[in-house]
Amino acid sequence: MMPKRNLLSINDLSIKEINRILMKANKLLQKKNIKALSKSLSGKNIINLFFEDSTRTLTSFELAGKQLGASVINMSVATSSIKKGESLIDTAMTLNAMSPDLLILRHNMSGVPYLLSEKVNCAVINAGDGSNEHPTQALLDALTIKRSKRKFSGLEVAIIGDVLHSRVARSNIYLLNKLGASIRVICPPTLLPPDIEGLKVRVCKNMEKGLKGVDIIMVLRIQKERMEGSYVPSEREFFKFWGLDRKKLNLANKNALVMHPGPINRGVEIDSDVADDIGRSLILEQVKLGVAIRMAVINDLIKHK
Amino acid sequence: MMPKRNLLSINDLSIKEINRILMKANKLLQKKNIKALSKSLSGKNIINLFFEDSTRTLTSFELAGKQLGASVINMSVATSSIKKGESLIDTAMTLNAMSPDLLILRHNMSGVPYLLSEKVNCAVINAGDGSNEHPTQALLDALTIKRSKRKFSGLEVAIIGDVLHSRVARSNIYLLNKLGASIRVICPPTLLPPDIEGLKVRVCKNMEKGLKGVDIIMVLRIQKERMEGSYVPSEREFFKFWGLDRKKLNLANKNALVMHPGPINRGVEIDSDVADDIGRSLILEQVKLGVAIRMAVINDLIKHK
Amino acid sequence: MMPKRNLLSINDLSIKEINRILMKANKLLQKKNIKALSKSLSGKNIINLFFEDSTRTLTSFELAGKQLGASVINMSVATSSIKKGESLIDTAMTLNAMSPDLLILRHNMSGVPYLLSEKVNCAVINAGDGSNEHPTQALLDALTIKRSKRKFSGLEVAIIGDVLHSRVARSNIYLLNKLGASIRVICPPTLLPPDIEGLKVRVCKNMEKGLKGVDIIMVLRIQKERMEGSYVPSEREFFKFWGLDRKKLNLANKNALVMHPGPINRGVEIDSDVADDIGRSLILEQVKLGVAIRMAVINDLIKHK
Repeated sequence: MMPKRNLLSINDLSIKEINRILMKANKLLQKKNIKALSKSLSGKNIINLFFEDSTRTLTSFELAGKQLGASVINMSVATSSIKKGESLIDTAMTLNAMSPDLLILRHNMSGVPYLLSEKVNCAVINAGDGSNEHPTQALLDALTIKRSKRKFSGLEVAIIGDVLHSRVARSNIYLLNKLGASIRVICPPTLLPPDIEGLKVRVCKNMEKGLKGVDIIMVLRIQKERMEGSYVPSEREFFKFWGLDRKKLNLANKNALVMHPGPINRGVEIDSDVADDIGRSLILEQVKLGVAIRMAVINDLIKHK
Repeated sequence: MMPKRNLLSINDLSIKEINRILMKANKLLQKKNIKALSKSLSGKNIINLFFEDSTRTLTSFELAGKQLGASVINMSVATSSIKKGESLIDTAMTLNAMSPDLLILRHNMSGVPYLLSEKVNCAVINAGDGSNEHPTQALLDALTIKRSKRKFSGLEVAIIGDVLHSRVARSNIYLLNKLGASIRVICPPTLLPPDIEGLKVRVCKNMEKGLKGVDIIMVLRIQKERMEGSYVPSEREFFKFWGLDRKKLNLANKNALVMHPGPINRGVEIDSDVADDIGRSLILEQVKLGVAIRMAVINDLIKHK
Repeated sequence: MMPKRNLLSINDLSIKEINRILMKANKLLQKKNIKALSKSLSGKNIINLFFEDSTRTLTSFELAGKQLGASVINMSVATSSIKKGESLIDTAMTLNAMSPDLLILRHNMSGVPYLLSEKVNCAVINAGDGSNEHPTQALLDALTIKRSKRKFSGLEVAIIGDVLHSRVARSNIYLLNKLGASIRVICPPTLLPPDIEGLKVRVCKNMEKGLKGVDIIMVLRIQKERMEGSYVPSEREFFKFWGLDRKKLNLANKNALVMHPGPINRGVEIDSDVADDIGRSLILEQVKLGVAIRMAVINDLIKHK
């Protein structure tokens, strides 16, 4: 299904391929014939190589791989040869020599998955690289939107908060543009990426104006570390101006839905009242669909090696 | 078999249910038809969520789950979003959204498994919460006693040492009372729980008097941290007065057997001479039976969802 | 196949047994009938108990076990009861009581696997003990040599660098002597083991002379910690005199091949130009064959319990 053996960027995928992944994942959610599914990748090996802490993404990929019957090995960086001074590329080539079928990689530096994918024979999934991309997150977000809103064309999506440092924002912008949604980003000028002009999005520097007419609000996580830098004056002030609370949510369209890649900072970028509103918040739905999206992607990459 | 989907407290279980678990585990020990067994939970997912260090309990649950063919995922707290400031409940709800079949939880605060079990759809096993309960430990202790002594009724059981901080003591007191054994606790006044009166046990403040007529001696682990507080004067003094050595063991009934939940502190709460006496010590037998008990409990909780 | 249930030292193995392991591993590399293979140890349990950081060895054993269909549990020392002050032997006996089929042990103290193997019922593999032995590394090195050079008899092998602290050197010396190769060690006097006289090797204290007529060059890893001690003056000086670069490689036989157990220190014991030369370096081949060797060893130890 995928001509390349890797999923490094949303830009690797055609619209046709994206739609096939979304359909496959949607079908997996019905969980018919679990026993057969749990053997489909038996004898295949997946290595999760995560250089950043992660609950949901690592567990989601681990569950996805195991539900397909693959052997999944988590490489903890703390216990690896990296500590002995081995280079990143040597580590990857060593793992590659063990002939895994798939390497799932998270790294705090943008571009690392590209670099490594050129050195290894196995398929590579980018599970988040610095502030660059996180393609499976964008795919699961698209599936979440599709199941709620039934369409992308004509849909107004606002991405709010720390756009500058967000790989989730970038992958979503690429994907939603491909699918025909209309995207605006709403954030303080200090958190706007310098290359925003090339990204085909509207820029709003004001929540009140920006949220008007919006169908989907994607709230981004703001790293607490940013609070101490020059990006944001304080948590309290960030929440006051840019945090999504009920009052600001009411500025959007009547049935506007709220998304967040998690983990959420309650009272910073989002109010608990909004995050926990099961009529408006899709946050846990996103987590649920994440496992199915990853099953679909893993299955395709390994089957079509 | 269990009307509730959780095992949070021994008090969740009727005597009939307890006996069924013990019988099931006993049967599993015969290990007939291992290959069939190793597929009985294939396609099912278990998450071990441990907020405290553990060798034996975590490994025991992991082995139990894998021997039944389930996928087992260990969530290391050190690498989890907890470090990013995510709340305990958000972590649990995120994991729950990934649709596991069972969450096995250990936490240093009493009551956490109850709190979480109300928030998630999947079954929950309390693998130890603060100084409250550790129900699978009590069940494996009961199986150990049953296989050695063939009965509970009329049996004299002494629980000695740090009763105050022991979830093992509490779960065993509940369970042994249900099964008809007679229980006494032997400990210094500083290590006696304030609610001891409600627990249907005899209290002895002296090892010499307390050990007379005893069939089973359950020695509790004393955390080294307690030594520096106001609970105990010193390791040496604790051992002298409350540590189980051969001389004190000889005060009990002729065939009295010794148990300990492990890991043992040699020369603190128990002497090596007693701990390693294969004619009297059931300590390694407890570990062995622990895997079988956990297989029985996991199987029932998942099958009867 | 193996009369003993353990693989603690190369000296445990007869030449016949060694050849059978090499042949078995070689056959596994053809990877015919992967699905059948992936069930051959189903229902069996392996515990990796690693007291030292490791990428390649731990992952290699984990992959090997999982590809045979066994359940593999990694015991992280950081999260184990060892931190609670439990003794090594108590930890091993506790794990043993859980009835695993195989314990794979790495420890920074020589002899620990022997000590533990006497206390447990299950098979034990020594995955590296201090500066003593690392038998599966020597076996995979032998397979690498056999596939490249087709013979051992008459082959000239040089082991260069930190021989003193190297368990890889010791196991290789035992094994290559059994197989009929001729061995020389080349290293500074400070890094020569005191018992070298008993090891049936030639000692060279000079790379220029030592590399003449050599078919296989095994470069050893030098721990960076040694640089700060009295063993070696500096990284730069070590590289100048003892590091393998193109110029020194040219002193050996025309088709001499280079091996290294990894992870490599580029520019310390080996030059990148040599390490990355796919016509001369077998380093990644060693990693690849390591999984097959471990599958062969694990399979034999468990099947013949």
